[in-house]
Amino acid sequence: MSRKINKIGVLTSGGDAPGMNAAIRAVVRSCAYQKLECVGVFRGYEGLIEGDFKDLDARSVKNIINRGGTFLKSARSKGFRTKEGRQKAYNHLVKANIDALVVIGGDGTFTGALVFSEEFDFPVVGIPGTIDNDINGTDFTIGYDTALNTVVEAIDKIRDTANSHNRLFLVEVMGRDAGDIALNAGIGAGAEEILIPEQDMGKDRLIDSLRRSKKSGKTSSIIVVSEGDQIGKNIFELAKYIEDNLEGYEVRVSVLGHIQRGGSPSCYDRVLASRMGVGAVDALLNNEHNVMIGIVHSKIVSVPFEDALKGENELDLELIRVADITSI
Amino acid sequence: MSRKINKIGVLTSGGDAPGMNAAIRAVVRSCAYQKLECVGVFRGYEGLIEGDFKDLDARSVKNIINRGGTFLKSARSKGFRTKEGRQKAYNHLVKANIDALVVIGGDGTFTGALVFSEEFDFPVVGIPGTIDNDINGTDFTIGYDTALNTVVEAIDKIRDTANSHNRLFLVEVMGRDAGDIALNAGIGAGAEEILIPEQDMGKDRLIDSLRRSKKSGKTSSIIVVSEGDQIGKNIFELAKYIEDNLEGYEVRVSVLGHIQRGGSPSCYDRVLASRMGVGAVDALLNNEHNVMIGIVHSKIVSVPFEDALKGENELDLELIRVADITSI
Amino acid sequence: MSRKINKIGVLTSGGDAPGMNAAIRAVVRSCAYQKLECVGVFRGYEGLIEGDFKDLDARSVKNIINRGGTFLKSARSKGFRTKEGRQKAYNHLVKANIDALVVIGGDGTFTGALVFSEEFDFPVVGIPGTIDNDINGTDFTIGYDTALNTVVEAIDKIRDTANSHNRLFLVEVMGRDAGDIALNAGIGAGAEEILIPEQDMGKDRLIDSLRRSKKSGKTSSIIVVSEGDQIGKNIFELAKYIEDNLEGYEVRVSVLGHIQRGGSPSCYDRVLASRMGVGAVDALLNNEHNVMIGIVHSKIVSVPFEDALKGENELDLELIRVADITSI
Amino acid sequence: MSRKINKIGVLTSGGDAPGMNAAIRAVVRSCAYQKLECVGVFRGYEGLIEGDFKDLDARSVKNIINRGGTFLKSARSKGFRTKEGRQKAYNHLVKANIDALVVIGGDGTFTGALVFSEEFDFPVVGIPGTIDNDINGTDFTIGYDTALNTVVEAIDKIRDTANSHNRLFLVEVMGRDAGDIALNAGIGAGAEEILIPEQDMGKDRLIDSLRRSKKSGKTSSIIVVSEGDQIGKNIFELAKYIEDNLEGYEVRVSVLGHIQRGGSPSCYDRVLASRMGVGAVDALLNNEHNVMIGIVHSKIVSVPFEDALKGENELDLELIRVADITSI
Repeated sequence: MSRKINKIGVLTSGGDAPGMNAAIRAVVRSCAYQKLECVGVFRGYEGLIEGDFKDLDARSVKNIINRGGTFLKSARSKGFRTKEGRQKAYNHLVKANIDALVVIGGDGTFTGALVFSEEFDFPVVGIPGTIDNDINGTDFTIGYDTALNTVVEAIDKIRDTANSHNRLFLVEVMGRDAGDIALNAGIGAGAEEILIPEQDMGKDRLIDSLRRSKKSGKTSSIIVVSEGDQIGKNIFELAKYIEDNLEGYEVRVSVLGHIQRGGSPSCYDRVLASRMGVGAVDALLNNEHNVMIGIVHSKIVSVPFEDALKGENELDLELIRVADITSI
Repeated sequence: MSRKINKIGVLTSGGDAPGMNAAIRAVVRSCAYQKLECVGVFRGYEGLIEGDFKDLDARSVKNIINRGGTFLKSARSKGFRTKEGRQKAYNHLVKANIDALVVIGGDGTFTGALVFSEEFDFPVVGIPGTIDNDINGTDFTIGYDTALNTVVEAIDKIRDTANSHNRLFLVEVMGRDAGDIALNAGIGAGAEEILIPEQDMGKDRLIDSLRRSKKSGKTSSIIVVSEGDQIGKNIFELAKYIEDNLEGYEVRVSVLGHIQRGGSPSCYDRVLASRMGVGAVDALLNNEHNVMIGIVHSKIVSVPFEDALKGENELDLELIRVADITSI
Repeated sequence: MSRKINKIGVLTSGGDAPGMNAAIRAVVRSCAYQKLECVGVFRGYEGLIEGDFKDLDARSVKNIINRGGTFLKSARSKGFRTKEGRQKAYNHLVKANIDALVVIGGDGTFTGALVFSEEFDFPVVGIPGTIDNDINGTDFTIGYDTALNTVVEAIDKIRDTANSHNRLFLVEVMGRDAGDIALNAGIGAGAEEILIPEQDMGKDRLIDSLRRSKKSGKTSSIIVVSEGDQIGKNIFELAKYIEDNLEGYEVRVSVLGHIQRGGSPSCYDRVLASRMGVGAVDALLNNEHNVMIGIVHSKIVSVPFEDALKGENELDLELIRVADITSI
Repeated sequence: MSRKINKIGVLTSGGDAPGMNAAIRAVVRSCAYQKLECVGVFRGYEGLIEGDFKDLDARSVKNIINRGGTFLKSARSKGFRTKEGRQKAYNHLVKANIDALVVIGGDGTFTGALVFSEEFDFPVVGIPGTIDNDINGTDFTIGYDTALNTVVEAIDKIRDTANSHNRLFLVEVMGRDAGDIALNAGIGAGAEEILIPEQDMGKDRLIDSLRRSKKSGKTSSIIVVSEGDQIGKNIFELAKYIEDNLEGYEVRVSVLGHIQRGGSPSCYDRVLASRMGVGAVDALLNNEHNVMIGIVHSKIVSVPFEDALKGENELDLELIRVADITSI
């Protein structure tokens, strides 16, 4: 059922990602452009439950497009998983005359949104903000491109040392169950091997491959390991296994960690976030509910939450071939 | 007519772009992978005319994926525009047993390639390497994403000063006749106005818009001006016009210039270049001649040179709307 | 005459410099630490004349240490050069119970401070914040180290293009009458020649030197030109002169401009600013007036304004020799 | 005893540091300037023992000033600790007519140099290249300034996430037994607490301090932990201790690791390395042996190896006070 929308709430939830501020800014300014009111909700669903709101106008979001993190802050909320918590949230929204919500986050965020919107017939639109690029229905998520650049710059630095010392480095990168960061950053950083959850390489094939690399004249090596990979899961054990089974290399481990979530967003992420923020308000005004804004073939689209939440990560065979060939 | 390909030459031509080295590397390693020989040609078509060649193997291209510019160097060649020059080039190729060429560059490069390949029935495949993103038949050119990040980082710095002094800055960016850099970097940098060649704004509308911005509470402004824009073409005159017609702002000009062509390539450009380099060798082995490798909807495709060279830059109305809304 | 200090005002004046925010933060937190009140004055002496003040506590300055520019904004003030303007400023200070001022800026800022403090017997302490490093009595000014890094990173990018095309680039850098930025960034960027105001090279010696460079096998060149240099002052004319008198090089000009004033401060500048901010409050509590806080031989010192304002920039002969030798 | 020097060998040893390439370049070009021959020794003392040498002229070191790592490669050598190994090294030097050595590295490098030079009465000059800044007799070592910037930029990114989630982060930084990196980067990154080996804070005081911070309104915190610190040595245990003893914070650990050794050197490190490289050749020509080139009060000096190797790291009380005050 359609309802007139006068006031929109916006929040960020789950892990933060570079470009979330740009997305908030676009939602706020799109509201101003459409003569709607806009309210920021702090700390994701936690703030929704507590009614931690603040009016936002076009000037409230100046000078934030270039900043990492989210000025609305984010949190994971246990309360929102309960009927009681969601009821409190709904009551606060009604009391504040908020007619619709834009939620920026990942699959946990959209799962909560779907339950809530169906429970109270409340219009919610999602924007995919996560560095992991693990959401169905969109080619890219906000923050992913920035994270790739952060990883590649970090590995460029590590390679300085690897080259100088003829060492082998295992570099662990984020991505949860998706190997997108590992595969793309691995190609971009010129890694010799890339271990991703979508493809089980096996330790023996890894050792064989490293042995061949060495024979071909390589004196140092970078192996990029996705945090979700089977044999990479215990990266320090893997390091020991390689040292035990491959002579002549010193092995070092580097876990890139939280630097991957921060930093000033890349131009691509700022533009993507701006387009998605505008698209989210457009969708609400167009009476589309329970959809996520995605980008498919460079066009802004809307995808039902159900579709965004299902689906598995597919192995990109072309990219894997490119990785194999360019690391020869 | 198909011929067996045993040895491939590779060159870079025209203005340099970040990621060209990554593309060369991928061509060289793809040759190694396919058991083909590979020869680097220095200084573009000039080196072709002079026979300035060097054998390249997989190890020749180590540690270059992260470097801007092109280690094969580039040049604009007058000689290659003459029948005589092209004949010399052909003779050198025959003498060196080179069966096909991969040329990395922009429209000037492809124009030369097309003439040459038809004249001598010689297989040539192109890879689009230019920061301007002004080639038909591909969504992105190598170097464009990096240039966007360079521009956005530069404007972030200029904004520090603009904010601190309540100033208006005119920032000129590259792009030749295409407004892609200006439009995307303008959105990404949070510019108040963006002047692009595809859309003639007119000085009076610009002044009106700046006046409205000021009334709405903005105390500083960035205007991004594409080098090909009509009213922006003489940027210092434009600065004076604004100072004469708009009170209370000091106007400053910044011409970003050649920093936009350099720098370590972004992850996106490195991966794109790697995919295109592999794609170019695949195309040659597949008997595709006189095509450019492009990326369309995230897939590697091949496009006849004729199609790559025609076509005008279209105005992206969605992006212009996003620029208008987010700069409110 | 000594007076008890309970409340300190802080302002930034003149051109902005990276690290000014870190200095403000240190002044504010040092006041909190010493149980003093602190007041921010906006837009430098302009805001002093207009009474544009805001109370600042320790939490007011969170998350600004990494930001370029100055959140207190800066301006050049004509009013403060008049007796009438300074009287208004004094009246506002008295009315707000402000007992002393910390002013962050360059020589113009300190000249104003000296006149004001003597006129009204009002305690003022200065902190040198300018990228130009042209203040006597301190080895380094806040922002200078960051500007050096910005210049060197920009020239690294330009060099990518210079190398790829066998070109000669003239790169103009800031520094007013001081060649410090040009000389240090020139050495750091591996420039072939460095033109600084402290040393008049003459066009003919420049041409001779470039000719020798070319003979020695150099195929591209970067010449760093200080904005205050005699023959570099009209950089486009110089470019033409070189093209007219030196064969075989294309010459390009890049004026780095305002990007040099912005950007996130380097670690050195953040620490220097923090130390100077603490030192300024210490000096006031120690009844030192009309002094600038400086750093000499890595120690924080205080220098009478008179000494900071006099003196000429000396030519550092060791650095010039290093530049000559390493560009051989 | 003085001897005529015609040919100088140069090597890098120990952990690599940004700026080592700039130092090699300056040694090589200084030799060219002084009409001396120069020979690069690969892989530190290992390459000396094996006679792994290469002639270097002024053009051999072009385009390396901006690169991290060391193109001569580095290694730790067990062989050089034996009389037999050093004898082989000496024989190779004599055979190659090398009259003197410049060794770039840290205390291990200088210890080896001292033994060797006394054993064979062979002239050796050292250049301090290590990110740790733990060498006596020089205010700064090459690579230290770059490492500070790398750490501060990484923590800026982590702070994005810390702020967005109200988290406490423990960030481990390098520095061996010296707290210089932790203390300076901690101030520069605005850390709430800094744990260094020179000062034992004790867990209880840390908890007390964090509790006070929280009361004062801080919602997120960064604690910088030097790898050599007593209570920080097992950083994951420390994280657990804090979570167990301080309510309301999630604690996360980030070990910055090897990214700290790499990256393009800062302008300061490039200039310092250039000056020290020139200074090393000057010292040899001046018959100074068994000295390290240092920088003291901004002047290039030479220090006997014995002095460089002794001495303990002193606690800089002014910096600690600045850290305490600015983190209030």
